[in-house]
Amino acid sequence: MTFASPAYTDSGLLAPEWGLSGAARETSDHAYLRALLDAEAALTRAQAALGLAPAEAATAVTGAAVPANFDIRSLAARTPAGGNPVIPLVADLTTTVGAVYGPYVHRGATSQDIMDTATMLVAVRTLELVLTDLGRTERALAGLAAEHRDTAMPGRTLTQHAVPTTFGLKAAGWRSLVLDARDRITRVRDCLPVQLGGAAGTLAAFQAYGARDAGALTQAYARELGLTAPALPWHTLRTPVADLAGCLAFAAGALGKLAADVLTLARTEIGEVSEGSGGGSSAMPHKANPVRSTLLAVAARRAPQLAATLYGSLAAEDERPAGAWHAEWAPLRDLLRLVGGVSAQAAELAEGLRVHPAAMRRNLHATGGLIVSERLSAALAPALGRARARELLTDLARRAREEDRPLRELLAGEPGSQGLDLDDLTDPARCTGFAGVLTDRALERR
Amino acid sequence: MTFASPAYTDSGLLAPEWGLSGAARETSDHAYLRALLDAEAALTRAQAALGLAPAEAATAVTGAAVPANFDIRSLAARTPAGGNPVIPLVADLTTTVGAVYGPYVHRGATSQDIMDTATMLVAVRTLELVLTDLGRTERALAGLAAEHRDTAMPGRTLTQHAVPTTFGLKAAGWRSLVLDARDRITRVRDCLPVQLGGAAGTLAAFQAYGARDAGALTQAYARELGLTAPALPWHTLRTPVADLAGCLAFAAGALGKLAADVLTLARTEIGEVSEGSGGGSSAMPHKANPVRSTLLAVAARRAPQLAATLYGSLAAEDERPAGAWHAEWAPLRDLLRLVGGVSAQAAELAEGLRVHPAAMRRNLHATGGLIVSERLSAALAPALGRARARELLTDLARRAREEDRPLRELLAGEPGSQGLDLDDLTDPARCTGFAGVLTDRALERR
Amino acid sequence: MTFASPAYTDSGLLAPEWGLSGAARETSDHAYLRALLDAEAALTRAQAALGLAPAEAATAVTGAAVPANFDIRSLAARTPAGGNPVIPLVADLTTTVGAVYGPYVHRGATSQDIMDTATMLVAVRTLELVLTDLGRTERALAGLAAEHRDTAMPGRTLTQHAVPTTFGLKAAGWRSLVLDARDRITRVRDCLPVQLGGAAGTLAAFQAYGARDAGALTQAYARELGLTAPALPWHTLRTPVADLAGCLAFAAGALGKLAADVLTLARTEIGEVSEGSGGGSSAMPHKANPVRSTLLAVAARRAPQLAATLYGSLAAEDERPAGAWHAEWAPLRDLLRLVGGVSAQAAELAEGLRVHPAAMRRNLHATGGLIVSERLSAALAPALGRARARELLTDLARRAREEDRPLRELLAGEPGSQGLDLDDLTDPARCTGFAGVLTDRALERR
Amino acid sequence: MTFASPAYTDSGLLAPEWGLSGAARETSDHAYLRALLDAEAALTRAQAALGLAPAEAATAVTGAAVPANFDIRSLAARTPAGGNPVIPLVADLTTTVGAVYGPYVHRGATSQDIMDTATMLVAVRTLELVLTDLGRTERALAGLAAEHRDTAMPGRTLTQHAVPTTFGLKAAGWRSLVLDARDRITRVRDCLPVQLGGAAGTLAAFQAYGARDAGALTQAYARELGLTAPALPWHTLRTPVADLAGCLAFAAGALGKLAADVLTLARTEIGEVSEGSGGGSSAMPHKANPVRSTLLAVAARRAPQLAATLYGSLAAEDERPAGAWHAEWAPLRDLLRLVGGVSAQAAELAEGLRVHPAAMRRNLHATGGLIVSERLSAALAPALGRARARELLTDLARRAREEDRPLRELLAGEPGSQGLDLDDLTDPARCTGFAGVLTDRALERR
Repeated sequence: MTFASPAYTDSGLLAPEWGLSGAARETSDHAYLRALLDAEAALTRAQAALGLAPAEAATAVTGAAVPANFDIRSLAARTPAGGNPVIPLVADLTTTVGAVYGPYVHRGATSQDIMDTATMLVAVRTLELVLTDLGRTERALAGLAAEHRDTAMPGRTLTQHAVPTTFGLKAAGWRSLVLDARDRITRVRDCLPVQLGGAAGTLAAFQAYGARDAGALTQAYARELGLTAPALPWHTLRTPVADLAGCLAFAAGALGKLAADVLTLARTEIGEVSEGSGGGSSAMPHKANPVRSTLLAVAARRAPQLAATLYGSLAAEDERPAGAWHAEWAPLRDLLRLVGGVSAQAAELAEGLRVHPAAMRRNLHATGGLIVSERLSAALAPALGRARARELLTDLARRAREEDRPLRELLAGEPGSQGLDLDDLTDPARCTGFAGVLTDRALERR
Repeated sequence: MTFASPAYTDSGLLAPEWGLSGAARETSDHAYLRALLDAEAALTRAQAALGLAPAEAATAVTGAAVPANFDIRSLAARTPAGGNPVIPLVADLTTTVGAVYGPYVHRGATSQDIMDTATMLVAVRTLELVLTDLGRTERALAGLAAEHRDTAMPGRTLTQHAVPTTFGLKAAGWRSLVLDARDRITRVRDCLPVQLGGAAGTLAAFQAYGARDAGALTQAYARELGLTAPALPWHTLRTPVADLAGCLAFAAGALGKLAADVLTLARTEIGEVSEGSGGGSSAMPHKANPVRSTLLAVAARRAPQLAATLYGSLAAEDERPAGAWHAEWAPLRDLLRLVGGVSAQAAELAEGLRVHPAAMRRNLHATGGLIVSERLSAALAPALGRARARELLTDLARRAREEDRPLRELLAGEPGSQGLDLDDLTDPARCTGFAGVLTDRALERR
Repeated sequence: MTFASPAYTDSGLLAPEWGLSGAARETSDHAYLRALLDAEAALTRAQAALGLAPAEAATAVTGAAVPANFDIRSLAARTPAGGNPVIPLVADLTTTVGAVYGPYVHRGATSQDIMDTATMLVAVRTLELVLTDLGRTERALAGLAAEHRDTAMPGRTLTQHAVPTTFGLKAAGWRSLVLDARDRITRVRDCLPVQLGGAAGTLAAFQAYGARDAGALTQAYARELGLTAPALPWHTLRTPVADLAGCLAFAAGALGKLAADVLTLARTEIGEVSEGSGGGSSAMPHKANPVRSTLLAVAARRAPQLAATLYGSLAAEDERPAGAWHAEWAPLRDLLRLVGGVSAQAAELAEGLRVHPAAMRRNLHATGGLIVSERLSAALAPALGRARARELLTDLARRAREEDRPLRELLAGEPGSQGLDLDDLTDPARCTGFAGVLTDRALERR
Repeated sequence: MTFASPAYTDSGLLAPEWGLSGAARETSDHAYLRALLDAEAALTRAQAALGLAPAEAATAVTGAAVPANFDIRSLAARTPAGGNPVIPLVADLTTTVGAVYGPYVHRGATSQDIMDTATMLVAVRTLELVLTDLGRTERALAGLAAEHRDTAMPGRTLTQHAVPTTFGLKAAGWRSLVLDARDRITRVRDCLPVQLGGAAGTLAAFQAYGARDAGALTQAYARELGLTAPALPWHTLRTPVADLAGCLAFAAGALGKLAADVLTLARTEIGEVSEGSGGGSSAMPHKANPVRSTLLAVAARRAPQLAATLYGSLAAEDERPAGAWHAEWAPLRDLLRLVGGVSAQAAELAEGLRVHPAAMRRNLHATGGLIVSERLSAALAPALGRARARELLTDLARRAREEDRPLRELLAGEPGSQGLDLDDLTDPARCTGFAGVLTDRALERR
């Protein structure tokens, strides 16, 4: 068959951000197939556990429900006819199980029960990897924050030097976002439910096949798979998917902040950090590109729109919708992959990041002392008044730029500066405010 | 001045979804002005509380910081120069406070401290309204679910009748989404923090003005405003904004599900529900448009993309960014307004919704009994085998359509149906599975 | 190697909307590999054509640049290191070409020259399929419009019956959107350029290797590939990508309108159209789901956000950006696939659509004649005045609903209706206004 | 009435990016009111022109249809009931026109006819301003490109110095994007149509009122307003709105590229350009923030998602939809405002941009000559072979960094460099390739 050709497969060639990562493996077509089969087998086992199906059926279905028995490309080729892969999969699985126990395959379920449950399994499995990598990342960042607690560097706002800060505080901030991402992902992961509703969410077919208690069946199903049992079928109550969208978009953005800063600080003229292993260039021998940060930036650019499509699918009509549900599959997989892939990249980035305090010191003096003007303003205010102090410094700043002279020198000639310790006041490294204690406090968070 | 002209103001003419709602009031320019002034005054009071400013300064600033003292259009006209409205506001407030205590206005703060804190105040105030309206909505839906616990109606999947369900289960599902929205909003609201970091997040200027403890100042500030005290300044750690984006997009989508169903069920041919107060038409006297649902649908269509812009702003470079922060203002306000406006609309919709059980009964028979084919399939399977039962029903379904005869009649002639209670099996109202108990269980949630 | 495992590949299992379509084939990793190799070979040939490389080098590179010589998974595995697949590809291609002519591989180019050019090739090739399928679709819709020029049906606004329209006009409208999509895609396709700029867009390396005329080289390159020659390298001037985003999002939305209508008209209660080949259900024997429309709806839901990511990449910093470019790859491929896949589905849908005029007639009478109230309003106005006519009809509409009586009957008793031809005025099929001539005019467009 | 309070109005306080610009004026509620009234008056005039209404009616409606006669807040307050502002506006306009000619107000039209037509008027009027400002911008950029045709500066890729380029080429690239935006906007503006379809797009009511020719009426209407006459009513064929979305998102992105570069080049450490008039800071006297670029960046961040909502509204069901249409209003207005506002900012930015060639020269030497490594690689290749040349340079680059020595010096000691003019080869200003001629060619475009 033409669809057997590799001409139709993707292997991550265009996806360096998740490429051949663990997340790629856990979200591949193969992983979905495995999860779909896990969901089918668990459903039969759950029915057997409640006496609604013979134990032998559970054994037979579980034995047959292994990926090696199925041909993904054939399934893919038959998917468009019914609009989802569960229909051909059930047909093949039933055949594989055979005449005796085949009737227990998928009994009472609707395609969406299996597809949604499998998707939750894929999500849980991928999020495990994400959480591990976010753990590595936050530990590495904690190390950087502690090590550079007092390493002064320019604080930058609207691209301009503002007042000094420390690299420790910056790393502690990155870490705090990573911990926020971890907490949000953990909270969502712990609640991901099985789906079980039957054709229109009433579990009527399960009743027809003998079930007495909707809750018991759903709970048995959830137990089999390590997911939670929802109060209601959620075919069109898409809270779990929206929650995944939110926590994954958050994680991508959190890592995107790290990337945005590394990309800035690694600029040739700034040079305050560099990636441990620079990316080569196809044209320029000397270049060491911040490739990991670039890949993180990709996820941060794409994730919000992927999440938007998922939030948009909340408004799903009827008992099961014509499109809103189907439109979730690819964006949710993409989000899982992207965040999974770049979490691993972020761990490598954080663990390998090289920090250049000498460049930070050099840059702190790039404005000839202007970076301490806020502090000087406060120091001059008692003598000159706040408005006059500000005015004076604005004027000196202009002169410093135009005459290319350090601010300290110009200041020494000013009457209002008498009695001030200009050496101390104009030393950027002594102007880092509460950066140290803020860093300490942030690192107490576990 | 030209900018004094009403030619530059908006009053909700294009915004029926939030128009002149409470949320419109709590998110207007006037509301932001009030919140900005509240933030400035609280900052001076917090400093006074710690002995960093005289009590008289706190009194003076608090007294001056009332909206009536300021001209919004003049502030707006001066906003582009510095890129945010705090700069001209501080200038005007300082003048209003006067020469003696003017220096205590905004002392140590950066524009973003005030703007972010004010935005959190606006958010909290708007979310109060949202939570009240979601409460009204869920109570009305709970009433509908209880009242129609056993009102059968067609369950619809991919636009087609599938199997019967109940209106009670549908309403319980809507309510469950509303409760999910409530829970997510409450969780976010309870954590919204003040912002206090100074020029680059080190609180250095506060130190310069005498502060000994960054934490104590932030906590005093938070106490003044009823917000939380963050561990770190969050100028570029935008968790609170992303959390707001997530819970608001969720709420819009949750109400969008309600709207999608009402819009479908209110269709002329379906007629199972109608809005309590239909919208008129400019051309057709007879029309009663489902206007409230339409407005809910607007919010569901717009919210995901607004949230996407906010998630995109997580990747904010440096200590304060050039664009990512500024790009948050309008989408966050729009989200608050939209969700605030349509929460009020949803409450009215739910409280006024008219349910038409007769139409539901009529529609249940629209397929001549085919809607019970899943149940028949289960009933016939023991005698015929699952595959043959399915085949038979597919065939009878075709004939029922082509010959316009009820399925029950065709079925009576089939050998496999001997001994089955066809009256019971083909009565859609008896095929609602566990809908009743699912509804009961869902209503237990508070 | 672990990455050789099928555990890392996708084959369209989750993508019924493009699954194993022609567009899937033209956008697979394999298709990109082919396009990348085409771009490399053409570059060497272009240099040879201008005497900048020996003809033998062109022959050697062209001969080596065939997909069968390369291992996609190995390339994918080496892609993250440099952030794009061209770097490992150039290494392998150089090796394959051999020591003598290897130095002519990729000479003077940067990775982005090849990647962008290849992407344009992939786009052109996929758009050919799209245009063919849109052509099939518009022809089928033209046939439906002509056939049903005078088939009256309810016009629906805000989900309610408004006034009658015709199915011919509806089909003509669908076709007009398809033609708009075709025109926009054609315009974009005809302008897609090669990329040639070298490391930073100055073509300096080509100059170093002997080129005298930047324009001549670019034109020779464009000639080799059937693309256009741009005035400037567009590494960070992303007009072609944004233009693709726009025309593809448009096409997805245009087909989404068709889908939205079919999904509505195919509802069980409405039944005015049905898809030629209904999708089966895993649970319910009787169901015929509108699967093709569902797949079209998926593309319409996803495309806008994919396009948004591409529009967002316009703001790309520097000569080549760290993330904005990389973030384009997946969304552009997804857009091409989605639109390619659903264009084929749309052609099938349009060619197979079954129209049910009897259901349209039945539905036209669903409001007991109220659907003609606008026309009656106009007819009564001369006698009663516009306001009074409107009032009367609103009142009669209410009574018609409450008393379940046809409007014609109630109207006959009203004084203002004397002398009016009520049979004509209340026949919906005679109230279709200019629908016929609008359809005729629309069909004149080619 | 409570809604008369300024508590409900916005005046641009949160919108420095469009604040009190011309675009703000042309998109205010007042401007929409004016356009709505223009549309109503033109419709009556068009009917009079065809003899379907008395000339006196046209005069009366035109005379009454002036904004001063209407209260926007009262209209806004009555808008939610019917879901659009045209319903209350028609009521008020009819009253204002009076009993005799009041019946000719809005005769035959549906709300959407007026709303869509007014929106097109607003769009045309705003786009005029945009085009003017883009014209100013491109002329200023052309001047910069010509002036700095040969001003060498570092070309940067993935944030790192790559090879030299010129500021002239950079400015020419910015201009080329601005011209692309201009061309796309012009093309769309020239096609914006009136809307005229009546209740369900058949123009039936116009026929009922005596119209003989749908086309003639639409054309007369279009003539009155200077818009085009569409072949079909486009109530749910939203090509004009999607086209506006596309060209406006493009323009925002095009200006976003300019902003991204200015924000980078204006960084304290880079300092190659600065905005003519820097934005002040509320805390730091010395700062001159690139505020205009920041505002441009805001538009580039927000526009793609606003466009996405509009593309999403293409999939509008029925003859007029319940939500898709209403969801267009705010995003389209926001896009017009944003692009209008930042086009004006861009003109100011381009006209005032200060270029610092000395900083460019300084930065060109920041890598100790490594920026010319690509060129050296080409020069060394004949003697050493391409691979060995690359290897050598990679090695020298490492040593240059580690030993902080200029590449030229290290190179002089290498055997392979004998006979090469190292002064020429390592002078970055002589390594700008075809930048000059590319700039010349680009400037030929008008």
